[in-house]
Amino acid sequence: MRIAIDAMGGDFAPDEILAGVIESTQYIEKGDSLILLGPAEIIESKIGSKELKKYADIIRIVNAPEIITMDEPPVDALRKKRNSSISIMNKMAADGEVDAVISAGNTGACVAASQLRMRNIEGVNRPGIAVVFPTFEGPVTMCDVGANISCKPINFYQYAIMASMYSKHVLGIDNPRVGIMSIGEEENKGSDTVKKARELIKSDPKINFIGNIEGRDIFKGKCDVAICDGFVGNVVLKLTEGLVDGLFKIIKHELMNQSMLLALKFRPVMMKLYQKYDYHEYGGAPLLGVNGTSIICHGSSKARTIKNAINAARKYHKMQINEKIKDYLATTNVKGIDEQYQNI
Amino acid sequence: MRIAIDAMGGDFAPDEILAGVIESTQYIEKGDSLILLGPAEIIESKIGSKELKKYADIIRIVNAPEIITMDEPPVDALRKKRNSSISIMNKMAADGEVDAVISAGNTGACVAASQLRMRNIEGVNRPGIAVVFPTFEGPVTMCDVGANISCKPINFYQYAIMASMYSKHVLGIDNPRVGIMSIGEEENKGSDTVKKARELIKSDPKINFIGNIEGRDIFKGKCDVAICDGFVGNVVLKLTEGLVDGLFKIIKHELMNQSMLLALKFRPVMMKLYQKYDYHEYGGAPLLGVNGTSIICHGSSKARTIKNAINAARKYHKMQINEKIKDYLATTNVKGIDEQYQNI
Repeated sequence: MRIAIDAMGGDFAPDEILAGVIESTQYIEKGDSLILLGPAEIIESKIGSKELKKYADIIRIVNAPEIITMDEPPVDALRKKRNSSISIMNKMAADGEVDAVISAGNTGACVAASQLRMRNIEGVNRPGIAVVFPTFEGPVTMCDVGANISCKPINFYQYAIMASMYSKHVLGIDNPRVGIMSIGEEENKGSDTVKKARELIKSDPKINFIGNIEGRDIFKGKCDVAICDGFVGNVVLKLTEGLVDGLFKIIKHELMNQSMLLALKFRPVMMKLYQKYDYHEYGGAPLLGVNGTSIICHGSSKARTIKNAINAARKYHKMQINEKIKDYLATTNVKGIDEQYQNI
Repeated sequence: MRIAIDAMGGDFAPDEILAGVIESTQYIEKGDSLILLGPAEIIESKIGSKELKKYADIIRIVNAPEIITMDEPPVDALRKKRNSSISIMNKMAADGEVDAVISAGNTGACVAASQLRMRNIEGVNRPGIAVVFPTFEGPVTMCDVGANISCKPINFYQYAIMASMYSKHVLGIDNPRVGIMSIGEEENKGSDTVKKARELIKSDPKINFIGNIEGRDIFKGKCDVAICDGFVGNVVLKLTEGLVDGLFKIIKHELMNQSMLLALKFRPVMMKLYQKYDYHEYGGAPLLGVNGTSIICHGSSKARTIKNAINAARKYHKMQINEKIKDYLATTNVKGIDEQYQNI
């Protein structure tokens, strides 16, 4: 399998990205290759010629001299910077030169480039980013977290299907329970779009749909898949991040106020929890619905994140998630549903 | 001041509600009275005649034999149950018989009853529920968290004004920084409604507007006021609740795995944090924008929550927040803005 990695994407690029790539060389399977994209001279000098020679069978560099920054408007950036890593790697995927792309760079640009080059899976209207939240009760897959901020019912329905496939075949959850994010458990709660989406998802008996879920339910083991629009999902994702950081900060503060010794004893527990329940553990979020394997990583990805993202890309590709989505969609009257619901 | 309290609202009613009322008798000012609404015989038997006699100068019971349950459709329930505590207390407020109402019951019914009876403050299109998040960096007021799930730009603008007044005059934050919840810091990020709302808020130089904020910023001291629609706000509120619970659960689990002694030592720290950063600390959420003082409490309110809510109602009323909102709105071209933006 050939995996392309954006060496210049993310707040800690290229150092952490490259460190993650080197680390992952010991885990990948025989015959797999890792293709690094970015300005060749930067990547070469960072890795060093000795190391590059050592990994000559695994690592290859493709020169991508232009860099899309984190805050550039995505579509503009892609139009202007055709020689950026994000542009080139997605074109390579479309041309069959790589089997997966990974980037921790500008999320909007990654989504747009994958959609533009890979195209959507037949029957999918809009792709969605699926993030896995590691919780005490098990991993919860949330889709969408930022690709599509104004969802129609058909998008929610397709997210339910695609995220279920991911939960089942990548995370190994049998018959995953799907909930739709709303503001109360009762059927009458939620926006008109959410209500129509619920009706649509409910009409498909193959989905293990449990109805509305609330914010608190994500961490309470009530569902395995949480469906929402990209605005709500993005807020949830970033809030979780901020709240976890904030809580550990106040715990540390309070412990130090009480006793320095207690604070010191708590430190390894905190570090362990941080690792165990850190969503970087899942490495990256697949862009579900594009005709290829596109893994989007957090902007603050470290070496560990990239190593895990490479693993996630392999699993996604080997488990043929896209084929499974296609097969599922072929069994539904998706075209009819689409026409019926697309203008809502 | 006369404060009406719904004795039958919430998961732990009437016991916890009544316990909170009794507890608060030691804090209220001379001349204040607490009016309890619910089936008179239940309230009387729960408090007991001896206690009732003791507090005869402070506590009064108004019989409201009907009970609106937590999951009843609000408008239906209000129409059918005119003798419920929520119906009667809001009517009493409208008739000038009480100065504030407090309920931990069906939120939708509380919002609808207060709107119906108290009416909106002149110039306010839709009221919003403002919740205070206690964070390490100070309290953050978020509005709306569930009264209005499909907001127009004018609603966001009015929430910015009203929540600023609350933050300033009730929480004592000078010139509160207002952010609007979005999915990125950049101006081009967000839904069309959020973008238009941002433009509108920005056009008012009296608001200390800092632009877009993300989920993580709420706990990072970036803003004092966070504006969002009721759908997003409700998800944020409940997610925070679930995540805090979930995190303490995994910390406890991990500590017990390591050493029972360490877990025992951590327990008082956890309890202290739970109290200090628990949003029940602020007692209840004011419904901003109605022509009266309406405090909405969490369904799982305990005695402490109710005691704090009574305190919050007093502060809201005494600080004349509604007068301050009226004064502010009189200085803006709110009618003109309204017409310009109301159909977006």
